[in-house]
Amino acid sequence: MGEALKGLKRTIMCGLLREEHEGKTVTVMGWVQRKRNLGGLVFVDLRDRTGILQVVFGDEINKEAFEKSDNLKPEYCIAVTGEIVKRESPNKDIPTGLVELKGESIKIFSESETPPIYIKEGLDAQENIRLKYRYLDLRRPDMQKIFKIRHKAAKIVRDFLDENEFLEMETPMLTKSTPEGARDYLVPSRNYKGKFYALPQSPQIFKQLLMVSGYDRYFQITKCFRDEDLRANRQPEFTQIDMELSFIEQDDVMELNEKLLKKVFKEVKGIDIELPIERMPYEIAMNKYGSDKPDLRFGMEITDLSEEVKNAEFKVFKNAIDEGGSVRAIKASECATMGRKKIDKLQDFVKTYKAKGLAWIAYREEEIKSPIAKFLSEEEMKNILDKCNAKKGDLILIVADPKNNVVLESLGALRLHLAKQLELINKDDHKFVWITEFPLLSYNEEEERYQAEHHPFTAPMDEDIKYLDEDPSKVRAKAYDIVLNGEELGGGSIRIHESKLQEKMFEVLGFTQEKAWERFGFLLQAFKFGPPPHGGLAYGFDRMVMFLAGTDNIKDVITFPKNQNAFCPMTEAPNIVDEYQLEELGMEIKK
Amino acid sequence: MGEALKGLKRTIMCGLLREEHEGKTVTVMGWVQRKRNLGGLVFVDLRDRTGILQVVFGDEINKEAFEKSDNLKPEYCIAVTGEIVKRESPNKDIPTGLVELKGESIKIFSESETPPIYIKEGLDAQENIRLKYRYLDLRRPDMQKIFKIRHKAAKIVRDFLDENEFLEMETPMLTKSTPEGARDYLVPSRNYKGKFYALPQSPQIFKQLLMVSGYDRYFQITKCFRDEDLRANRQPEFTQIDMELSFIEQDDVMELNEKLLKKVFKEVKGIDIELPIERMPYEIAMNKYGSDKPDLRFGMEITDLSEEVKNAEFKVFKNAIDEGGSVRAIKASECATMGRKKIDKLQDFVKTYKAKGLAWIAYREEEIKSPIAKFLSEEEMKNILDKCNAKKGDLILIVADPKNNVVLESLGALRLHLAKQLELINKDDHKFVWITEFPLLSYNEEEERYQAEHHPFTAPMDEDIKYLDEDPSKVRAKAYDIVLNGEELGGGSIRIHESKLQEKMFEVLGFTQEKAWERFGFLLQAFKFGPPPHGGLAYGFDRMVMFLAGTDNIKDVITFPKNQNAFCPMTEAPNIVDEYQLEELGMEIKK
Repeated sequence: MGEALKGLKRTIMCGLLREEHEGKTVTVMGWVQRKRNLGGLVFVDLRDRTGILQVVFGDEINKEAFEKSDNLKPEYCIAVTGEIVKRESPNKDIPTGLVELKGESIKIFSESETPPIYIKEGLDAQENIRLKYRYLDLRRPDMQKIFKIRHKAAKIVRDFLDENEFLEMETPMLTKSTPEGARDYLVPSRNYKGKFYALPQSPQIFKQLLMVSGYDRYFQITKCFRDEDLRANRQPEFTQIDMELSFIEQDDVMELNEKLLKKVFKEVKGIDIELPIERMPYEIAMNKYGSDKPDLRFGMEITDLSEEVKNAEFKVFKNAIDEGGSVRAIKASECATMGRKKIDKLQDFVKTYKAKGLAWIAYREEEIKSPIAKFLSEEEMKNILDKCNAKKGDLILIVADPKNNVVLESLGALRLHLAKQLELINKDDHKFVWITEFPLLSYNEEEERYQAEHHPFTAPMDEDIKYLDEDPSKVRAKAYDIVLNGEELGGGSIRIHESKLQEKMFEVLGFTQEKAWERFGFLLQAFKFGPPPHGGLAYGFDRMVMFLAGTDNIKDVITFPKNQNAFCPMTEAPNIVDEYQLEELGMEIKK
Repeated sequence: MGEALKGLKRTIMCGLLREEHEGKTVTVMGWVQRKRNLGGLVFVDLRDRTGILQVVFGDEINKEAFEKSDNLKPEYCIAVTGEIVKRESPNKDIPTGLVELKGESIKIFSESETPPIYIKEGLDAQENIRLKYRYLDLRRPDMQKIFKIRHKAAKIVRDFLDENEFLEMETPMLTKSTPEGARDYLVPSRNYKGKFYALPQSPQIFKQLLMVSGYDRYFQITKCFRDEDLRANRQPEFTQIDMELSFIEQDDVMELNEKLLKKVFKEVKGIDIELPIERMPYEIAMNKYGSDKPDLRFGMEITDLSEEVKNAEFKVFKNAIDEGGSVRAIKASECATMGRKKIDKLQDFVKTYKAKGLAWIAYREEEIKSPIAKFLSEEEMKNILDKCNAKKGDLILIVADPKNNVVLESLGALRLHLAKQLELINKDDHKFVWITEFPLLSYNEEEERYQAEHHPFTAPMDEDIKYLDEDPSKVRAKAYDIVLNGEELGGGSIRIHESKLQEKMFEVLGFTQEKAWERFGFLLQAFKFGPPPHGGLAYGFDRMVMFLAGTDNIKDVITFPKNQNAFCPMTEAPNIVDEYQLEELGMEIKK
């Protein structure tokens, strides 16, 4: 039988004990990290949330406690009372290493079986074991560190937004589908059989309604839900820092959020973000980095060679350009001697991004080696090398395609791939960038219509409204993403607050008025009553914590995550339910 | 077409303008509360989140703005720039009443149709209209006040718990059913057709697991879900302030939470709670007030007359006592002259609580009037009056029943009913009380077994463990509720951290080991690895805000609440979904 506290009070946490506590009698409580019996003495490393303290039991300290201590095993939960003394042989690896606790009495609250995973820093267990025994996995000091960071980051965000006159307001979880495009989780209604609530993909519409309601500045740190096939670093439920402001424009949202980011990264991670954060229009990001979330920790920018090769004999280049595409390159410095096999692998790599091939020019010390050299005049070759700013020793990698986005996306991916391979990325670097001027719409070839890149309430840039009729693809949005080290940390937009423009937008999107009202009726209705100019932003909080904690696994920052199949190995959710539960809901499982 | 900001910045909020701003040029933005055209001048009351400011437009101030202002209608959203000047006729009713804004330019962001509900303090619209146009209802200043209070209360709670070393940690929303006894909302799984997640009724099990994981102090302000038939002040989704602590006992939880409550009520409402808050064992609460959530804002305690009347000729009394029940009374001071009809109504009232009747003794100036006087000796009558401490002018109301709980509950309800009727309750009073020593179990007559009053992880009081076998109904729990003015604000318990005791508990509850493992297997498994002594508490945050905001309607404190049928008149959720959505889930609607 485990013992009870019965009035015993913890007086201090294990990890806080220092030389200054010498001579004091304390009571600590925690878990046995390890026990060593050295004959006359038993040494126990006792662990709590704050760290590890060495406790020593001995016949001469207290006979009863000494005898009891010999029964201890790892992960027993205990309390020890005794005097703090200086350690004879200090342990410099831990903050409490100069002192130890002389165990004068001991309580064993509960015993432990041998845990199936080691409770220690660093990962070694398989993921399914970690998730099944998550309560033990969460005992590991590196996991505890992550959740302290998560708590701290949320606290800083809340304090900052509170200071900036935001109100935290909760929006419904049982609601109607939001127009984010992903699949909704549905919740059958018992009162209205055959009808369903949806769990929110984001509080988008509600936050806009709160602006219509005059709350001026709203935020919320809240769960969102998407029933999608899980890719790495996606979870069916995830947490968003969501905000919306009235009477503001894009710059206001960005400036405020820069201050927020600066504060969070400084106070949690000690990183100084220089403000203002660089702002880069979408088109430039695409042209330079082949990505709308460029990793700016290294160079290797994309160079457009279309002008230089437009008259070349090489048909692949010529066709690409003639058909409206382009020929572009990146330069891998000091890679001119890269072997053929390696280059072939790069070629295979770009093909997964739909590129048809990868041309290359190795500007070696002794020669220019290139399978396409024979198709290029000397001048063309020189122009290419000049345009790429290539020096002896560099390798030029070229993609040509009639589709510009294939050229850019494959080179963008190749750029990242090479940077990792060549170890060009300083992992301690934190390169923030705002991507702006996103396209408002993209053309869906299958459905033969335009669709909103962000969502249908995103405002077009004032100077582009005129293109809405003649060439919708030219319209840029008042949308912005904040990108860190090549990952999207958050994004937002200024919203349309003007009924006529909103109607126009739906028209361009091919919504009949009826369909628009069916889907967004209450928002459109609300907009008839004096909506203010407004806009906002949302961060993926899990991803932010991943950066702050330095992990690239989203499961590390969520207390009880699901696995890749949206299954929880610990609770075994989802699971079967009783027949009567389905009957109450008027539902049946399809045979 | 509405106008855009185009660089225009708000410089101050409407409600903040004072005499000190005289002579300054400001830009304010908000909604037209009302407009009056007095010929040469147009007066506009402009409203934002902070209050109302008078704006005056005139030909001599600015002709263009003046002309534009005449088009304004209520709820138009506008910006006005101009100079702050002293008002000729101050308005003492509003904080900005000494000044007004000379409207030199105006922007109309958006127009408004005539709103279907008045945007003003005080309720007048029907609930279904308020909920349908919730975004307009939320514009009303009294609603905005509530959500500022809600934000502030949450902030204070978070700051306090952060200062006290709690970590805010999120627990899953898509999970397995928790054993709270109510009906779960289910979420069909697409990956595992025929299986379901459940939305959490509370984070109970997860917070206990976090204690097993060594997080020491956890909290969360989070949504919980119960699919129950809605009573007044119940919502299908509600918000809980949830906390759990390790290495503590009941007093520690209570002391910490008293400090928390003191801080919240002081800072939000200016109320000083005297600490320590009174603690009252369940049995005393029941005997004195006929309720486990007694309203202590008034006296009228229940008096046990069983001893005094046990030998009386009156059969109703005698039978009640002989069969193990009791005869008890409350005293309505200065009600001896209450008319027969009124007393009959009280009798009808107690009958709804299963009492068979209501005896009464009117201790009038001139006589003692009572339908049961003839059954009582003079001495018995005197003893009754003495025991009740009755004075001339008092009315004694008596219930007798073979079931003690019928006597107590009906008198408890009558006590509240009378206090309201007699206006004995000071609405500004805030009487907190801890109710402790709850019964651990209650006997379910239908199922012929004991069931947990709180939940099966609640620890019994140490001194009562011995009764678990022989008389489980005698066992009191380490459970505690915090009650304010007769309403439960929160409650919690110390949990069992000891496997053997937990097994015993399941045995008493009639769970086979198999069934216990099927339902709570992962928790029982976790408890094999050194669980710490732990306990916690959860507040109904919505109810707390109701107290802080002084409203008795839970819908007032939730941004977008459901109606009594768990339906949202604004979004029309729940609603039908596309057939393919059900197909993907492998579900069918039962015909």
